[in-house]
Amino acid sequence: MRTFRAAVFAALLASVSIPSSAETPNRAQLASSVKASHDANLKRLQDWIAQPTIAAERVNVDGGAEYMRKLLLDAGFQQAKIVQTDGVPGVFATLDAGAAKTLGIYFMYDVKQYVPSEWSSPPLEGKLVDRPEGKAVVGRGAVNQKGPETEFLAALHAFKDTGRKLPVNLVLVAEGEEEIGSPHFKQIVANPEVQAAMKKAVGVFIPGAGQEPTGSTTVELGAKGVVELQLISSGKDWGRGPEKDVHSSLHAIVDSPTWRLVQALNTLVGPDGHTPAIEGWFEHVKPLTERQKELIADGVKKTDEAEIKKIYGVKHWIGDEDFLTSQLRLASQPTINIEGLVAGYTGPGGKTVLPGRAEAKIDMRLVPDMTREDAVAKLKAHLAKHGFSDIVVNVSGGYSPTQTDENSILIRSQIAALKKAGIEYALSPRSAGSWPGVTFTGPPLNLPAVGFGIGTGGGAHAPDEWVLIDSKNPKIAGFDDSAMFYVDYLYELASMAKGGR
Amino acid sequence: MRTFRAAVFAALLASVSIPSSAETPNRAQLASSVKASHDANLKRLQDWIAQPTIAAERVNVDGGAEYMRKLLLDAGFQQAKIVQTDGVPGVFATLDAGAAKTLGIYFMYDVKQYVPSEWSSPPLEGKLVDRPEGKAVVGRGAVNQKGPETEFLAALHAFKDTGRKLPVNLVLVAEGEEEIGSPHFKQIVANPEVQAAMKKAVGVFIPGAGQEPTGSTTVELGAKGVVELQLISSGKDWGRGPEKDVHSSLHAIVDSPTWRLVQALNTLVGPDGHTPAIEGWFEHVKPLTERQKELIADGVKKTDEAEIKKIYGVKHWIGDEDFLTSQLRLASQPTINIEGLVAGYTGPGGKTVLPGRAEAKIDMRLVPDMTREDAVAKLKAHLAKHGFSDIVVNVSGGYSPTQTDENSILIRSQIAALKKAGIEYALSPRSAGSWPGVTFTGPPLNLPAVGFGIGTGGGAHAPDEWVLIDSKNPKIAGFDDSAMFYVDYLYELASMAKGGR
Repeated sequence: MRTFRAAVFAALLASVSIPSSAETPNRAQLASSVKASHDANLKRLQDWIAQPTIAAERVNVDGGAEYMRKLLLDAGFQQAKIVQTDGVPGVFATLDAGAAKTLGIYFMYDVKQYVPSEWSSPPLEGKLVDRPEGKAVVGRGAVNQKGPETEFLAALHAFKDTGRKLPVNLVLVAEGEEEIGSPHFKQIVANPEVQAAMKKAVGVFIPGAGQEPTGSTTVELGAKGVVELQLISSGKDWGRGPEKDVHSSLHAIVDSPTWRLVQALNTLVGPDGHTPAIEGWFEHVKPLTERQKELIADGVKKTDEAEIKKIYGVKHWIGDEDFLTSQLRLASQPTINIEGLVAGYTGPGGKTVLPGRAEAKIDMRLVPDMTREDAVAKLKAHLAKHGFSDIVVNVSGGYSPTQTDENSILIRSQIAALKKAGIEYALSPRSAGSWPGVTFTGPPLNLPAVGFGIGTGGGAHAPDEWVLIDSKNPKIAGFDDSAMFYVDYLYELASMAKGGR
Repeated sequence: MRTFRAAVFAALLASVSIPSSAETPNRAQLASSVKASHDANLKRLQDWIAQPTIAAERVNVDGGAEYMRKLLLDAGFQQAKIVQTDGVPGVFATLDAGAAKTLGIYFMYDVKQYVPSEWSSPPLEGKLVDRPEGKAVVGRGAVNQKGPETEFLAALHAFKDTGRKLPVNLVLVAEGEEEIGSPHFKQIVANPEVQAAMKKAVGVFIPGAGQEPTGSTTVELGAKGVVELQLISSGKDWGRGPEKDVHSSLHAIVDSPTWRLVQALNTLVGPDGHTPAIEGWFEHVKPLTERQKELIADGVKKTDEAEIKKIYGVKHWIGDEDFLTSQLRLASQPTINIEGLVAGYTGPGGKTVLPGRAEAKIDMRLVPDMTREDAVAKLKAHLAKHGFSDIVVNVSGGYSPTQTDENSILIRSQIAALKKAGIEYALSPRSAGSWPGVTFTGPPLNLPAVGFGIGTGGGAHAPDEWVLIDSKNPKIAGFDDSAMFYVDYLYELASMAKGGR
């Protein structure tokens, strides 16, 4: 989910354009090493793409964790171990460089589902193809998140291959259930050994291909929380209607769990078709601060609304609002969305059945200070109040919102690195997308945590997902430049004065 | 759809038990011929099952018609030709025996979709398996409708093989779109040559495996009409929301065609979750006659309600009505049913998309004097009135209700044949299921038309569909007895005094 383009537009802050940091010791040697290992790094990415882990379908869940573990050991982590959970296992690894500071890293090793017939290049082959942006690897997970993660690993390989010590220690946690809403990620971080190690970190980031087509990037200081769940209406649980699909003519005398689901769903949003109508839904919604509004307004000024609408295939924002109002809404509005509907016959044309079961796949996006637990409780109370307590609420994943202080050392060091690299950057107060940052930013760790990285790609959760390898545009990083940016960043963080997380 | 067990229970009328008709000339010779051809007839059925035509998926639509044509010629029809339509082609065949009366026959050569993994025996192999009832062929189309149709063809083969003339002339029409609601069947019958031939018929029947597990059968004098359609809400047609699936976080600022569909659907039925709420829906609904109520009440008395509930997997009838009230409702209530829902992500768990399109598969069952055309017009007017005129109403098939006079020569001859065969029978005023009988019973033909036949089977539209071949129960016909019943019936019809269609 991390590579979803920041939909809340943020103020772009211009930087002086200098292509590399002058402060990285032995930079030329490290850069040569990255360059020399280009083909090996590329193959590492392709081999990883060929081994997808898909939590929703329980595909390669044990093999994926073991593969991740080996990738980390290979990159120089001194220890890496599987952390069992009630779901897909995680991986925990440490690299002690004897440095003063420790940096936390978050990886996901799972990928989204894919339909091979929709792809122009086989999704597991990771082929190098020509795109307008340059040469790119096309494959499931290319940008979300194996490509950027492999770039970070390439930085570590450069240290290893040149026999150099990292300027900071690393502690890394990886999970294999990000794409289903990280249902067990808390268990991984709650592991006493993992927690003790993580507590030493000044902050945590997940590598990302963060550059827009213009070359600019966005530091997202927060993200909405999300709850994914399925609402299931069935004859079995209701005690009315059929227990399985029966002939549709029987609807004259047999109740329909599908109509029941429609009626229950209809109570969840207002007449406008989007405002959540769950009792107490807005109780804990914190309004945007003046600083947050300012960042959004600055971002809107610098964004081409028409282009954005075209990308989304959208002609009107909700309520025909202007772009600024709409963007303020995007950052501040908690949502209830129907991801999918499934009942009875779903093939071409029709089939005369009265379904015994109907399901709505829902995601709810949460803003501070809403919590996952409270949102689920309110949904259940709402259904019960409206007489739908038989409808099963199956929560499959999710987490509360996350927020990081722009004055923390993590953000300050990232901004400094971007400035030195001459990359235009923006500060976004909150992404409308979600990631389980609250596992780090919430108690007991209370660490700064964001996504971070340069380079670019696209098609996350879609066919022909890609990550840029060789860039035609000097303002956009390819694979090697992205890896070197992480090298530079580690030195930047090491050199930065502490104070104010 | 024809083999759906009559859900409206009807008065069982006891008959004297005599196993065969005394009036069929050369009966022993014909019966020997049927017996001698048993294996060939069985193979004919199995070969046909191996060649399924599935209109919804456009599987084998031309090959299926040609196969049907050859089966008819092989059975003794003097001519059989393909009738092109705007959809799947039909077949028209005649057998002129120089007789005084002409009988119309309706065949369907298509079958319902199937999922092989759900079957205990491969759905296209038509294997002979042991069941409590006796040896049965298991395969898609076994009972719906290839088995009973092959039994009728076996009767014709007996005439051909013994060199005997039929006592009546035959005119047959076959279609390959019954399972999608017969969208082009009218075109076949409207063909001038077909219509001229059909007009000579005293009535029309489709062969069916009409015996219940008790050995009794039901003559259904009518059937509800049906309209199958898809309601489609999309960003493209609405002009709001996304044109394709986008990331679900965008729901904060982008409208959802799926919520819109939910809201539109919610207007279609009342708060009870089943009573149609379309304006004017009940305008043309004709109440049941006293005779119809009497037949239903008699049927209810002889039916085990608990057993029926068990078969359907249902604990309560709509509104907790008693069995009689419920059965009166089944015959008289027009319905709007959701056959299926499809939107966005439909796999396991969830996927964070805001779907660009949502579809509800609907069937509406109609009673006299509702018509298909009026029902569709009322639905569209309702959607427009409620502000949902952007929702596409894609009518994929359907027809108006059908009704046949119990005093017609067709019904009188059938009852006489059942009585002579000693088969307990019931008269049902109206099936809640549907078949395109109105194509015959409506203008311009205005012919009596029903389903007719003995023998038994099950699993229509479901896995492990079967038709009985060798019966363990002397009260239930196997394949050969069913074929001979059609032989006897043709003589019965030939001998019957005309008068009162």
